[in-house]
Amino acid sequence: MSTADNGPAPSPRMTVKRSPHRGHYDRETVNAILDEAMICHVGFIVDGSPFVIPTIHARVDDMLYFHGSPATRMMRLMKIGAEVCVTATLVDGIVAARSVFNHSLGFRSAVVIGPARLIDSPGERASALEAITDAVLPGRWAEARPPSRNEDKGTLVVAVSIDEFSAKIRGNEVSDEADDYDLPIWAGAIPLSTVAGTPEPDGRLLDGVEIPESVKQFVEAHTP
Amino acid sequence: MSTADNGPAPSPRMTVKRSPHRGHYDRETVNAILDEAMICHVGFIVDGSPFVIPTIHARVDDMLYFHGSPATRMMRLMKIGAEVCVTATLVDGIVAARSVFNHSLGFRSAVVIGPARLIDSPGERASALEAITDAVLPGRWAEARPPSRNEDKGTLVVAVSIDEFSAKIRGNEVSDEADDYDLPIWAGAIPLSTVAGTPEPDGRLLDGVEIPESVKQFVEAHTP
Repeated sequence: MSTADNGPAPSPRMTVKRSPHRGHYDRETVNAILDEAMICHVGFIVDGSPFVIPTIHARVDDMLYFHGSPATRMMRLMKIGAEVCVTATLVDGIVAARSVFNHSLGFRSAVVIGPARLIDSPGERASALEAITDAVLPGRWAEARPPSRNEDKGTLVVAVSIDEFSAKIRGNEVSDEADDYDLPIWAGAIPLSTVAGTPEPDGRLLDGVEIPESVKQFVEAHTP
Repeated sequence: MSTADNGPAPSPRMTVKRSPHRGHYDRETVNAILDEAMICHVGFIVDGSPFVIPTIHARVDDMLYFHGSPATRMMRLMKIGAEVCVTATLVDGIVAARSVFNHSLGFRSAVVIGPARLIDSPGERASALEAITDAVLPGRWAEARPPSRNEDKGTLVVAVSIDEFSAKIRGNEVSDEADDYDLPIWAGAIPLSTVAGTPEPDGRLLDGVEIPESVKQFVEAHTP
């Protein structure tokens, strides 16, 4: 079980146990997955039970930011420093092998575990909110109406430091048992990607308002 | 906070707290999301800490099935009946509003919480494994080599009963503050979908082996 090529594991609990050669423990790999993923799934514990909720995140340097209403269980717990697990997953393809047991998905996933903390510094809050908007649609923050004082007051911003993390990556390659390569069964991968459709303008758009740069660039970057 | 239109909430902890009109508590809605999602994220607790791991699932009637190596923490815990949270999320679009605070994603998510249990009946194991393969690539089980006795022995199959569940759905519609509709700012949605690329045959394919029906049909169903 060598992980030498992928950097040292940060802690025993973050070591990839199954298919250890697919574990990665360097910050660059984890950051790239977190940045590409549009959403993540946040795990937390409520009354001894696990909960997993999808949410938007943004990474700024070694910090993951989240925002939300103080009404949600997730934000109430994160506000008081609860430990959470943040997992972001990108599915890159379906791997069809000759044997059913070697079927798989090509994927990249990143896991970060740590205590959340409430951000109350106005400066850090503002840059986190901008980063969260721009993480989904780069450049959009500058195009839209900035938050009012009431909107800003009604939103919690929390962060998880990217200290304890790991990634797991499986490519789209087929890996069959030696004997199975002689079988007359098709094997290969179906690549998958997230693709943007034609933007749908809101029905109440003022006359003459054009599609903005952020939307144009996103669609261009997500057209096969 | 009325949820009357979306069916009764199964339990207080499964009630959608934020934007309650987006909560759905009927089995059909939850099943449809679980069936369309290629992966889910499973939350569980290890030594008091939350963990979230992406995995493949299949639904058969009111049961969610998972398979995996006995080496993983997730399977070890599920095998002994640990409570897990299974969350599946589909992202349908980016919603760009006139104000930064009304930006959102169009999404559908399903959450199921309950104890896992080991499946040891050979019949239920076999149909679960077939369902898991076909959940990703319908029809593939019948095309590929069936599991050998050793492969079968080396894999755990576990299930979570879909008893306690909820869904949350947000469409791609823009919802801006009343005053903001007068702003000369573009608003609308960018629809998103998962699209299949051209199948990539494995390099060691025998001569004359054609692309099978399962792959053809998947690509056709995932081409815009």
